[in-house]
Amino acid sequence: MTIRMSVMWTVKMLGLAVVALPLGVELLGLLLRRLRPARTLNEVLFFPSELACVEHIFTSLSPGAVLALHARGVVVRILSDRDYIAISGSQIGVLRKAGICVRCDANSVHMHHKFALVDGRLLITGSLNWTLTAVQSNTENLVVTEEAELLRPFAEEFHRLWERNDPARCLHPKRPKHNSDSRTYDCQRPR
Amino acid sequence: MTIRMSVMWTVKMLGLAVVALPLGVELLGLLLRRLRPARTLNEVLFFPSELACVEHIFTSLSPGAVLALHARGVVVRILSDRDYIAISGSQIGVLRKAGICVRCDANSVHMHHKFALVDGRLLITGSLNWTLTAVQSNTENLVVTEEAELLRPFAEEFHRLWERNDPARCLHPKRPKHNSDSRTYDCQRPR
Repeated sequence: MTIRMSVMWTVKMLGLAVVALPLGVELLGLLLRRLRPARTLNEVLFFPSELACVEHIFTSLSPGAVLALHARGVVVRILSDRDYIAISGSQIGVLRKAGICVRCDANSVHMHHKFALVDGRLLITGSLNWTLTAVQSNTENLVVTEEAELLRPFAEEFHRLWERNDPARCLHPKRPKHNSDSRTYDCQRPR
Repeated sequence: MTIRMSVMWTVKMLGLAVVALPLGVELLGLLLRRLRPARTLNEVLFFPSELACVEHIFTSLSPGAVLALHARGVVVRILSDRDYIAISGSQIGVLRKAGICVRCDANSVHMHHKFALVDGRLLITGSLNWTLTAVQSNTENLVVTEEAELLRPFAEEFHRLWERNDPARCLHPKRPKHNSDSRTYDCQRPR
């Protein structure tokens, strides 16, 4: 009877092991996946780069990458420096005419940010002004990251500046530097 | 005898458990520490900020933060845009006079980078030109990060530009824009 009990106990333990082993492996896998999340994109681009083929994006004769996205129904919001709109080669007018919502910062000497947020999950930021000269001739950098700790503050900053420069709230901009056309504050929504 | 064997077996298993349990906990702790490394600094600063008290850093009457570091024996290397040296308010002359090694980029239209590397472990980069106007009046950002994937390319870029603009190699800079004083390429080492 003792031998029978001992055999039964061994069988029970084996059965328990058969259940516990895959369960343990599965739990360990789950733990590892939670502790080591999917790889976060962190890249840096430097300019001038011989690999950068960007002329077609910047020329006003072609629709450009931003216009193409807008045409596909992607919601694009652009916040620009007020002075930049008037400079030679600025594409802001082209973008506005296409119906893209553009607002201009009227509360600082220069809206010097040069960042973009893509789908709320990718941040592109750096020294690079989004111009052809900057890409082709200057020594510039561009950080491309999915890092949430960096992305979140930039998203909040964009939201803050976007709301601050809402034309409905901002009929009398504080900055006295220009008496420029107030239409630059409007969002055109022709379609 | 069977009871004695069973008791001995139980004692053995208990002994094994006493050893295996702390060993397992220790190994799990080790695994967790390896998988979740020490927190990497990722911060973003936005300007203008009311909290920024930076006047004393920028004024030429006080030694400034960089001069103070240099005086303490910290090796400081500065790579500047060639045109920036000549503009009003530039502190490059003050830094060079103090013996800080300054090189100027002579191979691009503008050396538009605005980054600093601290002790090879901290990257400070963004839209911010390191000027008082930028800090006090412009809408600007500054990323402060220890993220190795971002830091490494910037360190390589600094090294590349530093070597490219070595005055010993660069007696005849390619850029024909200026015929300015060649001393701007020298590193003064008065002490």
